[in-house]
Amino acid sequence: MSDAGVVYSFSQRVGGLKSSAIRELLRVVGRPEVISFAGGLPAPELFPTELLGRISRELFQSREAQEALQYGETDGVPALRGRILSRAPFAPGTFEADGVLVTQGSQQGLDLAAKLFLDPGDEVLVESPAYVGALQAFRFFGARVTFLPCDREGMDPEALRAALRRRPKLVYLTPTFQNPSGLCYSARRRLEVAEALRRSDAVLLEDDPYREIWFDAPPPPPIAAAVDPARRVYMGTFSKNAVPGLRIGFLLGPPPLVSRFALAKQPTDLHTNSLGQHLVLRLLAEPSFEEHVAGLRRAYGARRDVLDGELARCLGGRLSWRRPEGGLFLWARLTRGGDAEALLARALREGLAFVPGGEFHPEGEGRDTLRLNFSHSSEERLAEGVARLARAMEAWGPGRNGSP
Amino acid sequence: MSDAGVVYSFSQRVGGLKSSAIRELLRVVGRPEVISFAGGLPAPELFPTELLGRISRELFQSREAQEALQYGETDGVPALRGRILSRAPFAPGTFEADGVLVTQGSQQGLDLAAKLFLDPGDEVLVESPAYVGALQAFRFFGARVTFLPCDREGMDPEALRAALRRRPKLVYLTPTFQNPSGLCYSARRRLEVAEALRRSDAVLLEDDPYREIWFDAPPPPPIAAAVDPARRVYMGTFSKNAVPGLRIGFLLGPPPLVSRFALAKQPTDLHTNSLGQHLVLRLLAEPSFEEHVAGLRRAYGARRDVLDGELARCLGGRLSWRRPEGGLFLWARLTRGGDAEALLARALREGLAFVPGGEFHPEGEGRDTLRLNFSHSSEERLAEGVARLARAMEAWGPGRNGSP
Repeated sequence: MSDAGVVYSFSQRVGGLKSSAIRELLRVVGRPEVISFAGGLPAPELFPTELLGRISRELFQSREAQEALQYGETDGVPALRGRILSRAPFAPGTFEADGVLVTQGSQQGLDLAAKLFLDPGDEVLVESPAYVGALQAFRFFGARVTFLPCDREGMDPEALRAALRRRPKLVYLTPTFQNPSGLCYSARRRLEVAEALRRSDAVLLEDDPYREIWFDAPPPPPIAAAVDPARRVYMGTFSKNAVPGLRIGFLLGPPPLVSRFALAKQPTDLHTNSLGQHLVLRLLAEPSFEEHVAGLRRAYGARRDVLDGELARCLGGRLSWRRPEGGLFLWARLTRGGDAEALLARALREGLAFVPGGEFHPEGEGRDTLRLNFSHSSEERLAEGVARLARAMEAWGPGRNGSP
Repeated sequence: MSDAGVVYSFSQRVGGLKSSAIRELLRVVGRPEVISFAGGLPAPELFPTELLGRISRELFQSREAQEALQYGETDGVPALRGRILSRAPFAPGTFEADGVLVTQGSQQGLDLAAKLFLDPGDEVLVESPAYVGALQAFRFFGARVTFLPCDREGMDPEALRAALRRRPKLVYLTPTFQNPSGLCYSARRRLEVAEALRRSDAVLLEDDPYREIWFDAPPPPPIAAAVDPARRVYMGTFSKNAVPGLRIGFLLGPPPLVSRFALAKQPTDLHTNSLGQHLVLRLLAEPSFEEHVAGLRRAYGARRDVLDGELARCLGGRLSWRRPEGGLFLWARLTRGGDAEALLARALREGLAFVPGGEFHPEGEGRDTLRLNFSHSSEERLAEGVARLARAMEAWGPGRNGSP
């Protein structure tokens, strides 16, 4: 029953189907002796596990238990949709009650947007670098992805204005503590980008999973607050501020457009799991939930400090980076150039994993960049990981320009 | 901020996007005074709610709690995949450990199959009538759906052989207590269909959500057991034998094909919710779970008997149907012809909802058919519902050929 010789008649879109190197790494980096700065996992020891245990017990003893186990509406549990709307980082009235869809993590919003908008060859504008899960979703539907340059303040408005003249279908932005770069757009740049978008008919997809994980000061308002209300979709998730395993995300948009997203969701999965929705609904009603989020900020902020400090101490001249002000990632560049994939091969021998930055870029670019996750390692392991990275870079050869 | 005038540049596939009348009905048929034979909900009072409550408590107190709240592998929780494989209705060795993917209900298997195989205009063979959620999934990706006739034993093998000569990409079958028709293929017909499939290179998608809900005798083995191992995908779910709200389904197939399904799933939702997977895994390990399923058979069987008996008593000459041997639905035809949609309008005035059969058929066919769900109403309400249906048919006019 070997299938080795079978040729399947796949759809044309399967040609664009590639596994994410990050997801594949997650499979092999399970050995406890490996310190992983790869992946993008939140810290499980910081999950509100006890709180969710109590909430779950209360839910199963309540009159809502059966509803939490039954089929539900494609849009999502109505009370959760209301709670999402009232908690969203927008002035009241910015979005409407009918403009909320509960999704299977914010990732599903990307799949649905691609389904709804993209025919093969359609253009999508993204940041350089960009979130790889979005690139996968868009490319699977045949999109032509154009990466636009960013500086310290965010996407270059001039490059955006020029690209918008080609009338792309979608503009995908993650302006707040981006995965992978950690970049947070300035308030001024957000308004400049919004201004450019208002003059186009492209639809903004703003992906905002890390907003609540800020360390120094709350981030500026979303770009979606300042664009044409008919041409914006704002995506969020409870994966970072609560737990990812429930897969509860959401999107906000104008009701006529959100109803299309719901129609596209129906044949995909009927609806998002009811139990997870009810648990998140009750979690958001807990007075201690906001304390929990504040605790995450402190804990991840401390980890960021350790990574930033140890890098400065051990690798000051060899790597350059910006201290991230929130999120889960620190983004670094090899100051003397070289290929981060080759460095990874060396680092794995030292017992350290990270993600080379190439796959977040257009083919062939960004090979001298690397993404370091600091949320999933203890402060001790962060320090030890940097020591291993330093040893790897030493062995890999300073100034030898990437040849291992 | 009205969006009434906005014209979005949707993808071409959006033209094929229509809401399911069934799902829309689910929204409006919430009033307690309406008896609903519409929808396809299992009975929430028969859910193993207490058992799941205990399991959930144990899970939250266990060392696996954090894992059940964390991101997971796209393929699914390994122990659950193993358990699914050993529980599947196939001889050991029929499928392999790498040939199991946990999905977001079995519905997601349809979406992934459509993504992987269907370009616009590609042909998919289905039964007439067919499950409407599959039609939505296939049509969204531009499929040309061909409905093939079925008799009491299953799909007509001659019609299937003829259609296979056109080299369709997929053959979608629900041979066991089908939604909507309740049809269960005979053992002999299953082998004839398998024989026809073995001579073609179409991929079989066998959808088997109702297999465990049999009333009189266990159904014959799946068709997938007897076809080319390289060209079969078997889909199942825990929505009917356990609970639907966790959205845990699965598919089995040859590993090289299942790995493509996993690749296509990755940008869709990263993975299926971890908590639901862990709960199902523990549920399947409970000795009382099989008793629970046996209890469902008895309870749903008794409801089937009431519906069947009351229809015979009140509507004998006006409706024809086959007593379903399993599943959740009874499928009926108006013996004097007429339009079931017009009958529905009259029935709603009597306080009864059902699903007119048209949408399970090719455009314009099957207008004299109706689907009656018997799993979600108590025996009392089933009897009262039939009385209401009889009153509606009286008012609607016997022999008046459907004009209300």
